Amino acid sequence: MSTTIDIPESSKVAKGKAVVVAPLRPGGWKKGVAIMDFILRLGAIAAALGAAATMGTSDQTLPFFTQFFQFEASYDSFTTFQFFVITMALVGGYLVLSLPFSVVAIVRPHAVGPRLFLIILDTVFLTLATASAASAAAVVYLAHNGDQDTNWLAICNQFGDFCAQTSSAVVSSFVAVVVFVLLIVMSAFAIGKP
Amino acid sequence: MSTTIDIPESSKVAKGKAVVVAPLRPGGWKKGVAIMDFILRLGAIAAALGAAATMGTSDQTLPFFTQFFQFEASYDSFTTFQFFVITMALVGGYLVLSLPFSVVAIVRPHAVGPRLFLIILDTVFLTLATASAASAAAVVYLAHNGDQDTNWLAICNQFGDFCAQTSSAVVSSFVAVVVFVLLIVMSAFAIGKP
Repeated sequence: MSTTIDIPESSKVAKGKAVVVAPLRPGGWKKGVAIMDFILRLGAIAAALGAAATMGTSDQTLPFFTQFFQFEASYDSFTTFQFFVITMALVGGYLVLSLPFSVVAIVRPHAVGPRLFLIILDTVFLTLATASAASAAAVVYLAHNGDQDTNWLAICNQFGDFCAQTSSAVVSSFVAVVVFVLLIVMSAFAIGKP
Repeated sequence: MSTTIDIPESSKVAKGKAVVVAPLRPGGWKKGVAIMDFILRLGAIAAALGAAATMGTSDQTLPFFTQFFQFEASYDSFTTFQFFVITMALVGGYLVLSLPFSVVAIVRPHAVGPRLFLIILDTVFLTLATASAASAAAVVYLAHNGDQDTNWLAICNQFGDFCAQTSSAVVSSFVAVVVFVLLIVMSAFAIGKP
């Protein structure tokens, strides 16, 4: 009798083990997410540093001048653009420093620690990047269209190159913002799903 | 012989069960996080809708006028401020709709689904709120200080009330942004930690 009871019990243990091992298997996609995370970070580094460099080198001097004035527009004409250059450089620097943590997530796809660390810092730097991108966009919009009620004239007719350069910097920074949103969503899924 | 092998095996099963039950216990703080999440959302609703209303009612007409012009500044003088009113109303609406999910997280503190849903939508609306707050801040800064190189004059000497009202709307919107960052960080911890 004891042996007949014995056999189903040991098979139960084997079944239990199979169930315990099974949930670890489907997490294989987490390694793929981590690799995607690393690649997206490389793209965001290029976008952020490209935006900072494009904005930082924007400078146009008009070919005519009066006795007292020379007409010049550069990124430090606007406090907002100075803020943009600084924050985009900071965001680029953070992204470079975050690469090792992304590598850890590739090597250990099931570790929660590095992803949690990245998701929190990503959120903070997403806010920073969005703030500088949006404020620069608002100024670029005013430079293109001016404002009637306050009598601010559009400057892009005169400073065409300057406007083109700052506009492309803003576009590049929004690419970095979109990548940040993707990174956070991917990390959240990788943490939340088994 | 078969019975002596039998006993350690069944005790192994009991041990395994004890280990499985243990990690669920320390998650009691998750209910606290969920309640905090709900309260913060209420605060963010007030901040976002307050910002939209403050900006939307900003309107100042100067007491002097010429034959052809009356000097008036309102939120629709600036496209950025119109964007601000619309996005802040959207963010407020989203936050109201997110309250039921926050309640679900209170009732079932260990469920990953509602938190994952909230963390993803929170990230999207954080970006929207930050973009509108920062772009409005850039315009408010220009209204206060003007810009020398482009000959944009500060208007806050004339439109003092208008500037005060738009500035406070911007401050209120940044409160909503800070709350969003806290919400995302809290949700990430609640998902990631056992």
